[in-house]
Amino acid sequence: MAVYTHLGAQDLAGLIAHYDVGELISAKGIAEGVSNSNWLIETSGSTGKGDKPGARFILTMYERRIEPDDLPFFLGLLDHLAAHGCPVPRTIHDRSGAAFRMIGGKAVALIEFLPGVSVDRPTTGQAFGVGEALARTHLAAGSFGQSRMQTLGLAAWDAIIHDCGAEALAGIDSALPALAFDELSFLAGSWPGGLPHGVCHCDLFPDNVLMLGDKVSGLIDFYFAATDFFAYDLAVTHAAWSFSMDGRQFRDGVSAALLEGYESIRPLMEYERSALPVLARGACMRFISSRADDWLNTPPDALVTRKDPMDFVRRLQFYREAGARAFTGRSGA
Amino acid sequence: MAVYTHLGAQDLAGLIAHYDVGELISAKGIAEGVSNSNWLIETSGSTGKGDKPGARFILTMYERRIEPDDLPFFLGLLDHLAAHGCPVPRTIHDRSGAAFRMIGGKAVALIEFLPGVSVDRPTTGQAFGVGEALARTHLAAGSFGQSRMQTLGLAAWDAIIHDCGAEALAGIDSALPALAFDELSFLAGSWPGGLPHGVCHCDLFPDNVLMLGDKVSGLIDFYFAATDFFAYDLAVTHAAWSFSMDGRQFRDGVSAALLEGYESIRPLMEYERSALPVLARGACMRFISSRADDWLNTPPDALVTRKDPMDFVRRLQFYREAGARAFTGRSGA
Repeated sequence: MAVYTHLGAQDLAGLIAHYDVGELISAKGIAEGVSNSNWLIETSGSTGKGDKPGARFILTMYERRIEPDDLPFFLGLLDHLAAHGCPVPRTIHDRSGAAFRMIGGKAVALIEFLPGVSVDRPTTGQAFGVGEALARTHLAAGSFGQSRMQTLGLAAWDAIIHDCGAEALAGIDSALPALAFDELSFLAGSWPGGLPHGVCHCDLFPDNVLMLGDKVSGLIDFYFAATDFFAYDLAVTHAAWSFSMDGRQFRDGVSAALLEGYESIRPLMEYERSALPVLARGACMRFISSRADDWLNTPPDALVTRKDPMDFVRRLQFYREAGARAFTGRSGA
Repeated sequence: MAVYTHLGAQDLAGLIAHYDVGELISAKGIAEGVSNSNWLIETSGSTGKGDKPGARFILTMYERRIEPDDLPFFLGLLDHLAAHGCPVPRTIHDRSGAAFRMIGGKAVALIEFLPGVSVDRPTTGQAFGVGEALARTHLAAGSFGQSRMQTLGLAAWDAIIHDCGAEALAGIDSALPALAFDELSFLAGSWPGGLPHGVCHCDLFPDNVLMLGDKVSGLIDFYFAATDFFAYDLAVTHAAWSFSMDGRQFRDGVSAALLEGYESIRPLMEYERSALPVLARGACMRFISSRADDWLNTPPDALVTRKDPMDFVRRLQFYREAGARAFTGRSGA
């Protein structure tokens, strides 16, 4: 939640001049993104393409965690999904056709601005719309020629949790080490194979979805996108949307609407559906491990807001107890 | 440089509904302001006044340092200056006519969005424009019926420096305590009286000025505005604009252009001009004292970027040596 790098007006105007978007009118650093600095940019609009004046863009500077070698994948994915009718921002290419440029040794990309706001407490209508939109990206991903290995899968959760160590984890919550090690053992023995797969968002939290009323106007922040089971992506989204933020309350109507929305576009195979309880427990471990790592390694007063790993421990406990009931609609809770 | 408070989409939409600005389309927390949280808001536009769709506003939440009792002054000042042709954003009043509202115990105001970007290294043309714009606010201030006591004047600098204490100041720079105490004694004996006065901005740094090319499109952040000598406000602006950011290089062309721009609108009285060297030294002490205080009392990794008090110690040393030459145009350096 920060702008890590100062870009002066001259830097910005010089950068914008490489794109066919007109003159720089305004630039505001925005408090979004943990790994990137972002600016909301307004320009006088492309002279070449008849865009109306006051064109807006998000300028993203890749600060950390993101490998420059992955940028063609991430930015190409945006273009592919947008071209296939998904509510995803296009990458603006510079006059030479490049999807990103370097400035001061860092990569920057100019991304289409999409309207909409992120919701904290989604309605069932909004959850249905998110399910639909996620399914559309999975269908469109089929024709995307690139892939990216999942670097935050089961092996990574295991490595992160072991690197944190039982003692440090117990400092977060005394029950956390036993629960995490036990769960990792369970997942190692139960993780499914052979499910339909392709490029997945893998991080579709409410703050990565822009909405206008119940309509999804934008899916953003694809920087964890990787090749994985589509049903795992749905499970991540389910864990992100179907609970109060702290994980204390399961919202069965939201859960049911999300699944209905998804299946209205891409019906699940029966073996995908039956894998959801395990996949959702894996989704919880994914965020427990990364949040525990951040929690233990981020100073409390740093620029980045630490997220509480216990929010996902509570979700995990729910999924453990509910099993398949978590995915059976309104009667499930 | 942060957004201190989370406002959800529902909070924002509920707030916006009190204004005649249409529906909420987008809201981005922006990384500006040390005492406030700010959002760049887009709405569908007022239905009542024929504003074009895509109207933009800055939503400011007053977090600290600013007394709610001062808000009618600050927000009324914006309206007064805007109405008198100064490039200052208007306050948007809610349907009941109120200039600010309370949300979660904090005051918020909706402010007109102005285009433009802040420059790091101003050109002489830009400095001339800033001088003009500052002088226009001084002329317009004459008809503003309210006043606000200067709470960051000589007595405050003295109190802050003494509260910091010689030992802590020496931790910033070994020469700082002697220089600061010596300078405060000099200023106490030399501060002028009876100069033309009125409401002044008192903090017109480049990041509080929006520019489109050489044109000043916005003067913003009037939250240090107070009744003071107009020539002191000019001296603050001179110290803020006429040096490289670290204060090591005096930029005589920029200095001359700023003064010329100011006097093209409001010629200085001879006794104002002769007071400038002392007023500029006071301006330096104003920022040395507040920055030293922040430096000593802000954790290095806090949300707020600490500014180096030595940037203004270097300016002070320049003004001490240059005297009236700092204000005599291109031959002055």
